[in-house]
Amino acid sequence: MFVFMTKLMLKTLQMVNTDKPPIWFMRQAGRYLPEYRELRAKAGDFLTMCYTPDYATEVTLQPIRRFGFDAAILFSDILVTPDALGQDVKFIPGQGPVLGELNLDALSLDNIHTHLDPVYSAIGQIRTQLDKEGFTDTTLIGFAGSPLTVATYMIEGRGTKDFMQFKKFLYGKPAEFDRLIDLLIECTAEYLIKQVDAGAEVLQLFESWAGAIGGFAFEKYVIETNQKIISKVKAVHPHIPIIGFPKAAGYYLKEYMTKTGIDALGCDFTLPLNFIRDELQTVMPVQGNLDPGILYAGGDILEREVKNICDTLGHKPYIFNLGHGIHKDTPITHVEQALKIIRG
Amino acid sequence: MFVFMTKLMLKTLQMVNTDKPPIWFMRQAGRYLPEYRELRAKAGDFLTMCYTPDYATEVTLQPIRRFGFDAAILFSDILVTPDALGQDVKFIPGQGPVLGELNLDALSLDNIHTHLDPVYSAIGQIRTQLDKEGFTDTTLIGFAGSPLTVATYMIEGRGTKDFMQFKKFLYGKPAEFDRLIDLLIECTAEYLIKQVDAGAEVLQLFESWAGAIGGFAFEKYVIETNQKIISKVKAVHPHIPIIGFPKAAGYYLKEYMTKTGIDALGCDFTLPLNFIRDELQTVMPVQGNLDPGILYAGGDILEREVKNICDTLGHKPYIFNLGHGIHKDTPITHVEQALKIIRG
Repeated sequence: MFVFMTKLMLKTLQMVNTDKPPIWFMRQAGRYLPEYRELRAKAGDFLTMCYTPDYATEVTLQPIRRFGFDAAILFSDILVTPDALGQDVKFIPGQGPVLGELNLDALSLDNIHTHLDPVYSAIGQIRTQLDKEGFTDTTLIGFAGSPLTVATYMIEGRGTKDFMQFKKFLYGKPAEFDRLIDLLIECTAEYLIKQVDAGAEVLQLFESWAGAIGGFAFEKYVIETNQKIISKVKAVHPHIPIIGFPKAAGYYLKEYMTKTGIDALGCDFTLPLNFIRDELQTVMPVQGNLDPGILYAGGDILEREVKNICDTLGHKPYIFNLGHGIHKDTPITHVEQALKIIRG
Repeated sequence: MFVFMTKLMLKTLQMVNTDKPPIWFMRQAGRYLPEYRELRAKAGDFLTMCYTPDYATEVTLQPIRRFGFDAAILFSDILVTPDALGQDVKFIPGQGPVLGELNLDALSLDNIHTHLDPVYSAIGQIRTQLDKEGFTDTTLIGFAGSPLTVATYMIEGRGTKDFMQFKKFLYGKPAEFDRLIDLLIECTAEYLIKQVDAGAEVLQLFESWAGAIGGFAFEKYVIETNQKIISKVKAVHPHIPIIGFPKAAGYYLKEYMTKTGIDALGCDFTLPLNFIRDELQTVMPVQGNLDPGILYAGGDILEREVKNICDTLGHKPYIFNLGHGIHKDTPITHVEQALKIIRG
């Protein structure tokens, strides 16, 4: 175990206090980095990058080399699961994801691992490359989108503001929706298990659209689905730490935290710091929650807010992160400024 | 006072229990109604409708005639305040609002009442018409957008998913942002005062993007701004009931409720019913919170959820409403179905 315990991120996830918090940023491998944009221009298609281990490895390493983050997160996307299940998924520059029509009968678990094999290869290659470049203490995070969040894209066919087609399906065709969700639970669990097999040391479940629904649907399609996935993954890998990130989960947050089986909670930027400290961090390690808008703005407010977060949450197990993915136009200097303050 | 007390909506706002809850739906005068679409086609421009008392009156009355809602809400838009302050505001079909560049020096309170006079005329005309058509017990609601929410449009120039330009301004140019917010507080308060002068019997403040920010910014730009407006309005009209609707206010909700001076709380669809009953409705009347996605879906789930809401919240002062505006493609029959269940 000693080799693990030199890793700041894993220490924190095991509730060991550290002098400084481990740091990583959601979407840290991305468009705000000039070296990313350069590689992306060469690779062309976004999914091609995800499915080409050399590209995925290079892109995953980029922010580690530049900023020395304590964790590297696999470069991929939450929509590789519907893609693996057989729905057509494309990323159109300037538009984001565009999915083909959802046909439940055409989806199948049969070929998911063949399809996702390049991702597993990438994970192995990233670990090797991290070690080779001296980042032996950098923790490798694997991830997946949670079923509800992924289902919003599968049903709407793209990002949505009001989730109306999604809700019409969820509330209007409950049996079909359950079939879709069950398929996603199975696919996501298997995908995450294989990520750990391949070398992921921590997993994060992104429930980015937890705030889209409420009531019984939240219980059934957020809490239960996340719980089932975590239970399946832990049955195979009992010690893998899993971070849950249920964005905008509102007053279901504590129930999510205690019922799903997560080991640490990702906090979005709307959560008050005192509330996180007094009511969430008392239960488990927390991660978050700098507003990416403040990182984007920079200046005095960035300095003040980063200090405020570290002062409030830094006395118990805590992972510094943003409260949402980094914005593509964030200046590199702002990231450097934030890191300098956190590292003290 | 007796004449007021025959109005279900005002009774509820005065904490008087009623057999059945008063009912109105956010955006009840809108595109889901064929008679609205017909008038809109004739009127052409959306803002023209808002600023033409005959149109605004007709459209406000349409859902009252069809469904007998207990409250009529002035047909208008939250962006009439920036328009009145001198920023260019257009509504482009299929795109929503598009605003001209924000120039703080060009904004002025000088002409707001001249500009908004057709709205005040519309309010008087709506009241007269309601009474003339026998809707004497129908309460007339005036409204405005809260400063933060309106400022997101003024800065971004349109609706936004990530609020990044807004946040860059808020966090990067705090003095200018404060100037904008102070102007909006003044404009909004004056606008609401004149609405009451003209005949509005209840006001609603829409803080639709309360969930866009957290931390000190929430305290300063949501709670303080709403409090200041309410205090100014109540200084002139001490008895006017004001409903606050801070969408996705998360863990700042109770502070918003107790500090702003609102008389009733609009609840969005993410708030758990038991939480509303046990922790919000114990403090003041509540309004909400059927998911418009459930109304759009219809069927068994609509029946079940409407019953569930009425059973949970119907024992204390409660106004039935949606947890967000009605979706434009909602079938009329679903609205009828919901009303039948609520009215028992």
